[in-house]
Amino acid sequence: MDTLHQSFTVKFSYDVFFTSALFDPNNKLINDFLTGSNLSTSIKKILFVIDEGVTNTHPALVSQIKDYFIQHNQTQLVQDILIIPGGEPVKNDTRYLDQVLEAVNNHGIDRHSFVAAIGGGAVLDMVGYAATISHRGVKQIRIPTTVLSQNDSGIGVKNGINYFNKKNFLGTFSPPVAVFNDELFLSTLSDRDWRSGIAEAIKVALIKDQKFFIWLEENADLLAQRNRAAMNYQIWQCAKLHLEHIRGADPFESGSSRPLDFGHWSAHKLEYLTNFEIRHGEAVAMGIALDTVYSNLSGRLSTEESNRVLNLIQKLGFELTHPLLQVQQDNSPILLGLQEFREHLGGQLTITLLTAIGKGEEAHEIDPALVKKASEILQELNQQTAHNFSSSIL
Amino acid sequence: MDTLHQSFTVKFSYDVFFTSALFDPNNKLINDFLTGSNLSTSIKKILFVIDEGVTNTHPALVSQIKDYFIQHNQTQLVQDILIIPGGEPVKNDTRYLDQVLEAVNNHGIDRHSFVAAIGGGAVLDMVGYAATISHRGVKQIRIPTTVLSQNDSGIGVKNGINYFNKKNFLGTFSPPVAVFNDELFLSTLSDRDWRSGIAEAIKVALIKDQKFFIWLEENADLLAQRNRAAMNYQIWQCAKLHLEHIRGADPFESGSSRPLDFGHWSAHKLEYLTNFEIRHGEAVAMGIALDTVYSNLSGRLSTEESNRVLNLIQKLGFELTHPLLQVQQDNSPILLGLQEFREHLGGQLTITLLTAIGKGEEAHEIDPALVKKASEILQELNQQTAHNFSSSIL
Ligand SMILES: NC(=O)c1ccc[n+]([C@@H]2O[C@H](COP(=O)([O-])OP(=O)(O)OC[C@H]3O[C@@H](n4cnc5c(N)ncnc54)[C@H](O)[C@@H]3O)[C@@H](O)[C@H]2O)c1
Ligand SMILES: NC(=O)c1ccc[n+]([C@@H]2O[C@H](COP(=O)([O-])OP(=O)(O)OC[C@H]3O[C@@H](n4cnc5c(N)ncnc54)[C@H](O)[C@@H]3O)[C@@H](O)[C@H]2O)c1
Ligand SMILES: [Zn+2]
Ligand SMILES: [Zn+2]
Repeated sequence: MDTLHQSFTVKFSYDVFFTSALFDPNNKLINDFLTGSNLSTSIKKILFVIDEGVTNTHPALVSQIKDYFIQHNQTQLVQDILIIPGGEPVKNDTRYLDQVLEAVNNHGIDRHSFVAAIGGGAVLDMVGYAATISHRGVKQIRIPTTVLSQNDSGIGVKNGINYFNKKNFLGTFSPPVAVFNDELFLSTLSDRDWRSGIAEAIKVALIKDQKFFIWLEENADLLAQRNRAAMNYQIWQCAKLHLEHIRGADPFESGSSRPLDFGHWSAHKLEYLTNFEIRHGEAVAMGIALDTVYSNLSGRLSTEESNRVLNLIQKLGFELTHPLLQVQQDNSPILLGLQEFREHLGGQLTITLLTAIGKGEEAHEIDPALVKKASEILQELNQQTAHNFSSSIL
Repeated sequence: MDTLHQSFTVKFSYDVFFTSALFDPNNKLINDFLTGSNLSTSIKKILFVIDEGVTNTHPALVSQIKDYFIQHNQTQLVQDILIIPGGEPVKNDTRYLDQVLEAVNNHGIDRHSFVAAIGGGAVLDMVGYAATISHRGVKQIRIPTTVLSQNDSGIGVKNGINYFNKKNFLGTFSPPVAVFNDELFLSTLSDRDWRSGIAEAIKVALIKDQKFFIWLEENADLLAQRNRAAMNYQIWQCAKLHLEHIRGADPFESGSSRPLDFGHWSAHKLEYLTNFEIRHGEAVAMGIALDTVYSNLSGRLSTEESNRVLNLIQKLGFELTHPLLQVQQDNSPILLGLQEFREHLGGQLTITLLTAIGKGEEAHEIDPALVKKASEILQELNQQTAHNFSSSIL
């Protein structure tokens, strides 16, 4: 009997909204979205799950949400708002996943209802995963509250939790139905979390958008001083470039090419080596520095452009490298990381390097001797700067 | 700042192959598939998970698979072949899900490697779910071994496990990379499992394909007598119609219209009421009978056509109805099932009924009095036939 061929396409679409004071009763944005997508006449439910780091710093949030849905009662708010810890612990322990699944079950959230997550990338990843596997997918709304989640992780299509001690071992590709970036959440971020997410903007500018890189150079001081307007533009442009990339090529990553992971191969390893005491963005800034200097040493990128990248990273207040990124001998942890990454890709490496600011190229071979040299250069530069800092303090 | 709009399509494609003796060393089919999809030069792994009901009845299978991959060694067989119970228990207890996840982890199955499930619909649903959530999706191959899984559940895009005592509470939409239907597996099915899956063919013929319905009428005796050629054609045509439906409309079921669930609203309830002692296909045959007679009583379908449907169902050896489908008063379990189904759809019912053999239509209202009448008619018919059977036996 003849082979039967199956082939179809599935369309995904969602908007990323930018706003201020999302739950101000006069802000109609989320209500308009919820009622607009309500095709039938029946009342839809919405279940909120919130990052404890957000409720701690925005103590009025829960009552604001309740008031909002008293005024805008076309959508039925589940009164039990679920508050869960923020950061990596929420992805490490399946107890929190089970809490969300139980809430979905107890409150009768179905495929026509919404689960809205408010929080950093970790909470959004876990709740997005829970929403995706419940009833083969209930509608997920993301309300990111960190720079990294507003400009990168919260606006994309991936989710996940850690399992068997492995980062994102469980997860899916599953777009949200909407993302609401509210600038007011960012005011309560620590300096580290404010800065950290900017690394993703440097990354995407370097591989895709020279003009944005120049904008970052010109606004580095404002960003470092926590200027809100500069931050808003940075987030908007970075999100835009990420969204364009996702829709352009291979949204659910069926191939091995992942240019948005520029600077990430060593960053991922470093996060593990430091037991996640270093922030993702901080590690990415160091990974970018390493792959930039490597691009220069391997003859791809001019020294002048390489130095501009390192200057920008430092101007924003990032460290250029970390002692654990130093290559001592052949089995340095970071070279082992490269080896693991090669195995993970099924034997052939695909790593993005730079040929110019704004232009990436894929490499399939990495020379360990040059990685060693690049890490030494960065170690030295970092010490000089630390020295400068301390002498300027003295 | 302007709202950013995201929109993209993702293409899914896979083949459903029909074969005999898939793991005969001279059968190149699966090896050709595995090596053909191997774009890079690196060796890919394949992990097998098998339904115990299959290994019990095909005791040579595991060694056949091992021999096959000794000969066809471009793909690296994971030597630990995982054997798990068949049927609903494997979807009820997350221990089995964890066994598959652990195997994926221990054997380093990544997004470029394969997890192949051999078994009935329950095993395929659970293993497909495990494969989908591992590393955001490792490649799943399905090798269905029951009639129902070869003509319907195994060739589609859904998977799932039961959770909180709810059928398919956890699951995703996630197409396989290939399906291999091997006719030889069917020879060891019980008569009930052989017959059961044919209900899905009646269903899809009734809503989509009059010619196929006539073919089923003409071949009902052969099918009941376990004729292999008739079964092969029935599976092929039923799978074809299901595949066409999935690619035609709304593959990941974002709307509420689900014509392939014709006859299923009462069937799902009946499966629960009988604690799954009744087979899915047996329940579907009864659900089809009920909705067919309802279509007639509500003036949609001619009595002649309605009788042809009931005749076919009986000729194949199915019961027309079940005592638990009888409507006694207003709160009969089956009417409660209708109510639950309405709530599940968010307030508005969408149920497919028949206007002719081969033609369905959506209804949004169901009259409980007519459901009662339809169930009484079927109860009576069933008793008469039981009486006929017993008198012919005497
Ligand atoms: N899905 C993706 O595509 C993707 C991409 C990149 C990173 N990630 C994931 O994102 C996670 C990191 O996300 P992150 O950088 O947003 O950090 P995070 O989620 O770990 O949060 C960091 C800390 O900030 C707190 N916090 C959150 N919002 C706050 C606010 N407005 N004010 C004060 N404190 C607040 C949290 O409680 C937490 O303690 C990682 O798990 C990473 O794997 C996912
Ligand atoms: N994913 C979907 O789209 C979809 C659609 C319909 C049904 N389903 C699911 O499929 C499941 C029912 O599947 P099923 O009807 O294939 O039954 P099943 O998987 O429950 O298997 C029935 C029995 O047959 C045994 N068995 C399997 N193959 C055999 C063989 N070749 N010889 C002898 N015994 C064999 C099994 O071990 C089991 O004991 C249900 O869980 C249902 O929810 C899924
Ligand atoms: Zn990143
Ligand atoms: Zn069915």
